[in-house]
Amino acid sequence: MPITITAFERSPDRGQGLARDMRVRWALEEVGQPYDVRLLSFKAMKQEPHLALHPFGQIPTYEEGDLALFESGAIVFHIAERHAGLLPTEPNGRARAITWMFAALNTVEPPIFDRSLVNILERDQPWYEQRLRALDGIIRKRLGDLSSHMGDADWLDGAFSAGDLLMVTVLRRLHGSGMLEEHPNLAAYVARGEARPAYKRAFDAQLAVFTAASAG
Amino acid sequence: MPITITAFERSPDRGQGLARDMRVRWALEEVGQPYDVRLLSFKAMKQEPHLALHPFGQIPTYEEGDLALFESGAIVFHIAERHAGLLPTEPNGRARAITWMFAALNTVEPPIFDRSLVNILERDQPWYEQRLRALDGIIRKRLGDLSSHMGDADWLDGAFSAGDLLMVTVLRRLHGSGMLEEHPNLAAYVARGEARPAYKRAFDAQLAVFTAASAG
Repeated sequence: MPITITAFERSPDRGQGLARDMRVRWALEEVGQPYDVRLLSFKAMKQEPHLALHPFGQIPTYEEGDLALFESGAIVFHIAERHAGLLPTEPNGRARAITWMFAALNTVEPPIFDRSLVNILERDQPWYEQRLRALDGIIRKRLGDLSSHMGDADWLDGAFSAGDLLMVTVLRRLHGSGMLEEHPNLAAYVARGEARPAYKRAFDAQLAVFTAASAG
Repeated sequence: MPITITAFERSPDRGQGLARDMRVRWALEEVGQPYDVRLLSFKAMKQEPHLALHPFGQIPTYEEGDLALFESGAIVFHIAERHAGLLPTEPNGRARAITWMFAALNTVEPPIFDRSLVNILERDQPWYEQRLRALDGIIRKRLGDLSSHMGDADWLDGAFSAGDLLMVTVLRRLHGSGMLEEHPNLAAYVARGEARPAYKRAFDAQLAVFTAASAG
């Protein structure tokens, strides 16, 4: 059954792979599933027919036959459940990998995503410096905990999993902040994720969309 | 196999059911599984042996034989996967219910949780009013989208699911803000969740912990 995902016609990150379709592309590349992409303008995302697929008017969505999903975490999980390579088969290891999926999205991502928003939307506000410092404190606490957990392991819990895939996409957003480099094991972890052939194929595919839009 | 979860010895919400053990208690009550609770002080949460269970030093955790999990979303999913009542058995409906779990935690919860933090930590800052207004704008957008999606349905997608369980715990945090009441269908949805016998048992159990701690 052909798979179609949606992505930004012109990604606000200029093709750095920070838009959330990157996670879905990467997961599909890891399991070797081809997919089509339907590009959306910011205007089209907020209107029907897209709102029928995504109640919050965002990307990505995922269509496969009569199944339609939204939320990048849920889509990655759906792919991981149906294809080998992104979740352990042993039940306890599988449950722990799913735990890391939720940890990436509900514990680690929120302050990191807020930091991106503050840098875009609040740079001219009088509170900008103080707010950034407060967020950086929260982020540093999370990174310290994560670094202690990882030690010298390659991945969060045994083999590479969908938990690592999501965590790497979350941590990548800190490139340029200098905070990853405060923990060499985390910087190496992100680099390890970005070096995977499936990651590179996904990254190149999303960058090609931006490059084509900019040339057009 | 006996189940043990962890919770605050003295919850900062004074037993209003906003701490994240509430979600796990509710899920266990929905599927009829008994559980033990190990209470933790704020100090004990940040130390071994708890850090070995939860790398970020938070509650809840979940222990069952040799399985140890953290992250409330992951624990609720684990319970929903192993016991009937929280996920549809039909594959597409199941995938959509899981989508709502991720949507509750990754799209709807972050601005609502931020609002709670701002009200606790930033009330005396010069930017308080402006920041609250900005957050309320984001939250109102999410609530409007969610209200449009729900229409006059009882639950997010067919029967009550783990997606509803998480969404109701997220939306409850808006009690007192007046924002839920702007969408009568969302206010009714939250009330419908809170009226479930399993919800009430879970709520009473977490309140009893706080009441006992306050009397002690």
